[in-house]
Amino acid sequence: MNHRMIRYITGSLIQMEAAMLLVPALTALLYGERYSLLVFLGTALFCVAAGHLVKGKKPEDVTIFSSEGYVSVAVCWIVLSICGAIPLYFSGYFPNPVDALFEIVSGFTTTGATILGDVECLPRSVLMWRSFSHWIGGMGVLVFMMALLPLAGASSMYLMRAESPGPSVGKLVPKVRSTAKILYGIYFFMTVGEFLCLLAAGCPAFDAVNLSFATAGTGGFGVLNSSAGEYNAWIQVILTVFMILFGVNFNVYFLIYSRNIKDALRCEEARIYLGIIGASVVLITVNTLSLFRGPLETLRHAAFQVASIITTTGFSTVDFEQWPELSRTILVILMFVGACAGSTGGGIKVSRVAIMAKTILKELAVMKHPRNVRKTRFEGKPVEHEVLRSINVFLIAYLGIFILSVLLISLDNLDGITNFTAVASTINNIGPGLSKVGPTQNFSIYSNLSKLVLTFDMLAGRLEIFPMLIMCTAGLKGKRWS
Amino acid sequence: MNHRMIRYITGSLIQMEAAMLLVPALTALLYGERYSLLVFLGTALFCVAAGHLVKGKKPEDVTIFSSEGYVSVAVCWIVLSICGAIPLYFSGYFPNPVDALFEIVSGFTTTGATILGDVECLPRSVLMWRSFSHWIGGMGVLVFMMALLPLAGASSMYLMRAESPGPSVGKLVPKVRSTAKILYGIYFFMTVGEFLCLLAAGCPAFDAVNLSFATAGTGGFGVLNSSAGEYNAWIQVILTVFMILFGVNFNVYFLIYSRNIKDALRCEEARIYLGIIGASVVLITVNTLSLFRGPLETLRHAAFQVASIITTTGFSTVDFEQWPELSRTILVILMFVGACAGSTGGGIKVSRVAIMAKTILKELAVMKHPRNVRKTRFEGKPVEHEVLRSINVFLIAYLGIFILSVLLISLDNLDGITNFTAVASTINNIGPGLSKVGPTQNFSIYSNLSKLVLTFDMLAGRLEIFPMLIMCTAGLKGKRWS
Repeated sequence: MNHRMIRYITGSLIQMEAAMLLVPALTALLYGERYSLLVFLGTALFCVAAGHLVKGKKPEDVTIFSSEGYVSVAVCWIVLSICGAIPLYFSGYFPNPVDALFEIVSGFTTTGATILGDVECLPRSVLMWRSFSHWIGGMGVLVFMMALLPLAGASSMYLMRAESPGPSVGKLVPKVRSTAKILYGIYFFMTVGEFLCLLAAGCPAFDAVNLSFATAGTGGFGVLNSSAGEYNAWIQVILTVFMILFGVNFNVYFLIYSRNIKDALRCEEARIYLGIIGASVVLITVNTLSLFRGPLETLRHAAFQVASIITTTGFSTVDFEQWPELSRTILVILMFVGACAGSTGGGIKVSRVAIMAKTILKELAVMKHPRNVRKTRFEGKPVEHEVLRSINVFLIAYLGIFILSVLLISLDNLDGITNFTAVASTINNIGPGLSKVGPTQNFSIYSNLSKLVLTFDMLAGRLEIFPMLIMCTAGLKGKRWS
Repeated sequence: MNHRMIRYITGSLIQMEAAMLLVPALTALLYGERYSLLVFLGTALFCVAAGHLVKGKKPEDVTIFSSEGYVSVAVCWIVLSICGAIPLYFSGYFPNPVDALFEIVSGFTTTGATILGDVECLPRSVLMWRSFSHWIGGMGVLVFMMALLPLAGASSMYLMRAESPGPSVGKLVPKVRSTAKILYGIYFFMTVGEFLCLLAAGCPAFDAVNLSFATAGTGGFGVLNSSAGEYNAWIQVILTVFMILFGVNFNVYFLIYSRNIKDALRCEEARIYLGIIGASVVLITVNTLSLFRGPLETLRHAAFQVASIITTTGFSTVDFEQWPELSRTILVILMFVGACAGSTGGGIKVSRVAIMAKTILKELAVMKHPRNVRKTRFEGKPVEHEVLRSINVFLIAYLGIFILSVLLISLDNLDGITNFTAVASTINNIGPGLSKVGPTQNFSIYSNLSKLVLTFDMLAGRLEIFPMLIMCTAGLKGKRWS
């Protein structure tokens, strides 16, 4: 394994984080938050120095392969999170380092689960750091770095593949660096678009920036204790639309950018995704009609909650804990489905779910007519055996981690729904769960051990499990990062 | 599809059920329950006549293939259940036909979930019919029929494969009829062994017969409202041991019967199964130590509950709903693991879980060292690609049915834990769940629609999903059973 290169990538990333920390530092300056300014600038300086130490000289051999890609991504995300937790801890609003780590991992992984009961008391710079972490984490920190630096040459593919969500990166792979730039360009302009729409709808500028960052990354950290409940109906509708847009496979936007509108409209995953949203909204609207004033308001809240959960953003306008069981069950199922592959959303991903469903239909056809063997098709092409296998392995590993996590956090002796939805919410990078971690609650009820387990789940969910598992098992076998 | 042969098999089975109904009829005669005697004899006569009508002449072409095997098994189990529900409905203790159907399906599928709050008021013949249905269903009704009748010749293999639990029937396949006979022989003697042990421990004879039937089939219907809570410690220990024994892969007993002790001891699935039981018992004993008088009593209750849940029997000596969350979570996980393949227990099966776990370890090794590709091994042999695929397909179909069932029964607006564990308990053929379907509760709280969904789940769980799915989809495409 090319350890020098892993170190070099990690060091570069820490230095990049120093630059990222300037965003909250600037916010502190703007709002006259002196102590916060000191904290963020101090951390930035620390990152520059630490990054330099870790980085070392640029190795002569910059080639990395699949396994190094996985390990780099896992190590980078952990180091990024630890450095990012430092200013939160020193801000004084987080009781202990584990809480600060949980919060920033929740930020970078675009989970949006918090351990704070009151966010309105936080300095604006801290709020900005939380939201900004969503924006960076959503599209991927390493993808961001690759867009800026010519780091690992052709081998960058392995980094991108390890960090990007979904069963395969597909067409985007060959020209990694230019692809990364285009993706971040689209991402940037969509975020700006949302910001302008929010402003137009009467949203305060600071809120609009933060909400745009959080929506773009499908994160879910808000700046009000009521999440999105206090904003006017227009703002809620705009958020709904943009949450759904950021949950679409970015391949679609890439195709639109390349003027290939016909192929963009044909994207099977996006169609299924919109179909699931449509069906869920209708069912929940009918089911909760008696709770609101009129069908239009019901529709708005149903659409907002569905969009928020399926895209794994995690905003809320109402306490859906109070909804009837059918609606709650639909939302829990959507937690697992998640958004499209190649979007900023989490979960199992629509394409995986669709391919799994198609596999079953195919198997049934084969059992009935053993001679008619056809391949499963998705996006108009036959699904390769390798993709099917990776989906199966993903599913099994996902279930394994899920079960183990529920078991570990059950030591805290909270109820089953709380534990089940806490893990579902973190591994799928959503934010709120149900019961004691419902939309009006937070994760502070858990012990530090459980918070660490859930932190691991957020990282495993964001990086789609294997980078974390490979790093852990490499550690188990006594290999050092020398 | 050979429809005439499917009819012939179904008709033969209905006639066999007439013979089975003589067991409760005899009980009614013995205990002077005249009305019940009338009901059971009447149903038996009806079965003889109906079976004759359905059966028709023996078809000239007795050959059947895989798809006919699946459909036959599904149709047979449904018809068997409908006929078996008739005496329950006429007994007058079940409010409506759906309840009677739920109860007998729960019997045949060895689930042991009941819709009755009070079982002690039931006539002894009805209690016997419930327990006896466990015994027949445990090893398989069609396997039983094959042991008795030379039905479909070499094609019987497809029936046995469709009805037997686990990823593959393995070595037992070639000589189907003699294998079926040996299996039922072992099963019969083990049941008698348990009956004698229970008598020796001071169990009343009627209870001992019923408990032996229910343990052998890993069913869980008891004759007391307290399940097994009122019996003395010795009886509870005997039940624990036999539950565990009936959850072992019958391959092991088959090998012992063939004097191949060495291979029997080497069975990997049985070792893992015992390992899981051991670990769970230790963890739960430590976790619940404060709830009982002394470690020995705690151990006894922990072992009983673990054995009962992992083998999917579903007896209980205490209300584990009151246990700490860690213990409850372990029990819920065991619900899914289930017993060994080729045993009378339900669930996903230890071998499937073990192979899935090994697959993940293999994939991690491949990701780290892409050139060292080794096959996953189980029971000392490489696992064939076909087995892996069937396990994956099973898992996906299982999850699909699970999610759809939870969604459908959530219409009744009960809480999430109740719905989740109700489906877990029925699809895994266990019996009790948690919360409102916990060990001291029953399934009468659900609407008829939900009871039908759960009835489907019990059948899908017992027949390992595909027979039911194939029958349903065949029906959807408008094919008739002419």
